[in-house]
Amino acid sequence: MAALVPDSLAKENNDKASENSTTQVIGGHGTNSYSNNSSYQRLSANVVTKKIEDAIMKNLDVETLSSTSNIFRVADFGCGVGSNTINSMQDLLQIVEKKYISQCPTSSQMPEFQVIFNDQFTNDFNTLFTCLPQDKQYLVASVPGSFHNQVLPKSSLHLAHCSYSLHWLSRLPKELRDERSPAWNKGKIHYTSAPPEVLMAYATQFVEDLDDFLSARGREMVSGGMIVIVGSSIPDGMPYSQVVNGIMYDCMGSILMDMVKTGSISEADVDAFNLPIYACPPGEFIEGVERNGLFSIEVIELMNPAPWLKGPIDIPVFVKHVRAAMEGMFSNHFPSKAIDELFDHLVLKLSDISQQLESCYRDGLQLFAILKRK
Amino acid sequence: MAALVPDSLAKENNDKASENSTTQVIGGHGTNSYSNNSSYQRLSANVVTKKIEDAIMKNLDVETLSSTSNIFRVADFGCGVGSNTINSMQDLLQIVEKKYISQCPTSSQMPEFQVIFNDQFTNDFNTLFTCLPQDKQYLVASVPGSFHNQVLPKSSLHLAHCSYSLHWLSRLPKELRDERSPAWNKGKIHYTSAPPEVLMAYATQFVEDLDDFLSARGREMVSGGMIVIVGSSIPDGMPYSQVVNGIMYDCMGSILMDMVKTGSISEADVDAFNLPIYACPPGEFIEGVERNGLFSIEVIELMNPAPWLKGPIDIPVFVKHVRAAMEGMFSNHFPSKAIDELFDHLVLKLSDISQQLESCYRDGLQLFAILKRK
Repeated sequence: MAALVPDSLAKENNDKASENSTTQVIGGHGTNSYSNNSSYQRLSANVVTKKIEDAIMKNLDVETLSSTSNIFRVADFGCGVGSNTINSMQDLLQIVEKKYISQCPTSSQMPEFQVIFNDQFTNDFNTLFTCLPQDKQYLVASVPGSFHNQVLPKSSLHLAHCSYSLHWLSRLPKELRDERSPAWNKGKIHYTSAPPEVLMAYATQFVEDLDDFLSARGREMVSGGMIVIVGSSIPDGMPYSQVVNGIMYDCMGSILMDMVKTGSISEADVDAFNLPIYACPPGEFIEGVERNGLFSIEVIELMNPAPWLKGPIDIPVFVKHVRAAMEGMFSNHFPSKAIDELFDHLVLKLSDISQQLESCYRDGLQLFAILKRK
Repeated sequence: MAALVPDSLAKENNDKASENSTTQVIGGHGTNSYSNNSSYQRLSANVVTKKIEDAIMKNLDVETLSSTSNIFRVADFGCGVGSNTINSMQDLLQIVEKKYISQCPTSSQMPEFQVIFNDQFTNDFNTLFTCLPQDKQYLVASVPGSFHNQVLPKSSLHLAHCSYSLHWLSRLPKELRDERSPAWNKGKIHYTSAPPEVLMAYATQFVEDLDDFLSARGREMVSGGMIVIVGSSIPDGMPYSQVVNGIMYDCMGSILMDMVKTGSISEADVDAFNLPIYACPPGEFIEGVERNGLFSIEVIELMNPAPWLKGPIDIPVFVKHVRAAMEGMFSNHFPSKAIDELFDHLVLKLSDISQQLESCYRDGLQLFAILKRK
C-alpha cells in the first residue's frame, strides 16, 4: 500500500510559475536524498514494464519508423534524479530492441539509440549523470525545461515516457488563495475533503496542462511514435479522501493547523499553501486526449500500483520516502524547523490511524496509458 | 597579456582516465567559481566572433543544409560552466540566422535551432542551465561525455564550436611518471623547460586525441557542416618557456619544489603531478587534420588572444582567474592547505618577475581554425 504515496510525489513539479511552492525533490546522494530513498518507485516500475512490452510489441511499428531515420530517440519527461529513470529508460530500450529483432529480422543493424532526460531547469541533472552506467550502449542527452512546452525539435522523437510526473500542476489556480472565491482553500493544503469548487479548480488546471503536454509532444513526435504514461489516478467518481494519499494530505493539513495553534507557523501561511498535485481519473484523461486530438489511445487502464504489498506498513520508513519526495515543496514555504515538526508529527499521526490506512481503497490508483501519435 | 592564461585553462579536461589529476573548474556561483571569474574569457571570445562571422558567411552553405532538415544543431564541445559558453552559442546562432537571411531570402521560415552543450559527466550542467536566458528562442540540450568519443547521433550536427578545450589531454602519458623513461618529468609539472622526450610524450598524446576528436565529429556532422576551433597555440618551433603560460607553469613547479623543502608536500607527489595541457603549434595541427582526412581546413591562423591588453597586469586578479580555472587539478592531488600556499606564493613570484612576463612573446598564441566536413 505504501508504495503508491511516495511514488506519486517522486518527481519535480514541471511548473512554469508555481506560485507558492517549489516541488523539487532532494538531489545528491545524502541521507534524505531522493536517489537513496526511491526503492519503492523501482518496484512500482517493474510492475508496468511487462505491460509496456506488450504494448510496444503489438503497437509500435519500428519498421516504418526506421525507414525514415537511423536514430531512435526515447525521452523521459519529468525524469527527476536517481537510478529509477535510468533503469526505466534501459528497460524501454531493451523492449524496442526486441521489437526490432522481431519485426526486422533481416535488417543488418540496429538504429542508434539516444536516451533523453527531461525535467525542469532546476532538476539535479549532475546527480542523474553520475548514475549512468559507464558501459552504456546508447547516447545520452538532457533537455531542461517544462514539458508543458516544446523542448525537442519537431518530429524528432519516437518514444516518450512519463511516469508519475503529469500529476504535478504547472501552476496553482489563483482562486485557491482568493478569500472571495468559493474555491478558497482555507485551512487545507489539497482538494481532499475540500469544497467541490476546490476540486474543480484543480481539475481545470490539470486539463489545461494535459493539453499543453500533448500539444508539445505532438510537435516533437514522429507519426506512429508512442507515449507511455504511468501516474497517479483514482476511479471515476471516487473521492480522494478514500485513498492513502488523500488521508495523508488531510493529516498534513491538520498537523499544520495544530502548529498554527502552538505558534510555530501562521494561519495565513497554511491558507496560502496548496499541494500542486492532481490525480486524474481515467474518464477526464480520455476526454482530454480526445479533445486534444493529436493522439489515439491504444491502451488505458487503472491498475494497482503495488499489488505485492501486503500486511502492515513501516510508517517511519514510509514517511522518510514521502519526505524525500516532498520536503522541497514545504521548505520553500515554511521555516525549516516547521518541516521537522511536520514530518515527526506525521509519523505519529499516521501510526495512530494505521488500521484506517490499511483498509483504504488501493486497487485502481495507477493510470497506465499508451498513446500513439496520429 | 593576462587574458590568455586563464582562458587556456578555463575548461574541464575531457579525459577518459586522467591518471593523476581532475581538471574540473570550480562550479556554482561562489567567490572562487569559474562563472564569477571568467570575464577575461568573454573578452577573448569577442575577438574571434568577427572571424567566425566572416567564415560562416563565406563557407557555410545553409541552403544545402536546410534542404535535408528543418532543424539546425549547434554544439559546444567542452562547454564548461558560466555564461561565456551561452554567449558564444548565441553569437553563433545570430551569425547563422544572418547567413540564412542572406542566402535564403525567399524562404518562408528559419529552421528550428537547437543548442547542445557538451562536457564531461562531472561538469556542472546544473549551474550552466541556471545561466540560460528565460526568453531564449532556441531549444537546449546537454550531452555529457568525453568529446573524444561520439556523443551525438550520426549526421545530426551542423555546426560545432570548441573553444579552449582541445588543449586538455585525454590522459597523461604514462612515461611522464616512469623513473626509467627518458620522459620522466622529475621535479616539473609541465613540458615547459623539460627534456625533449617530455615534450614529445605530450605532443604524441595530443595528436592521438585530436584524431579521436575529429573522427567522433566526423560521425556526428552532416556533410558541409563546420567546426570552429579556438584554443591555445604557439608558433611552430617556439619553446613554451617564452610565453606567459610556460613561465607560470615553471613558477608553479618551482614553488611546489620549495614546498617539498619545507615539508608541506612530498617530492614524490610533485614528480607524479603533470598538467595535462598541450598548446599545439599550427604545423602539428594541420598535419593531424590532414592525416585524419574527414575535414578540409577552410581557415587556420595564429592570432593574439588579447590584443587590447596593454600595460601592467593586475597579478592578484590574474592569479584569481588562474585559480578558478586550475584549482580542481591541484586539489585532487595535493592537500588543501598546500593549494592556498601555492597560489599565495604564485602571486608573489609572478609579481617579482612582472617585467619578464610583460616582455614575453604574446602575439600568435591563439589558434583559430575552421574545418569543414567533407
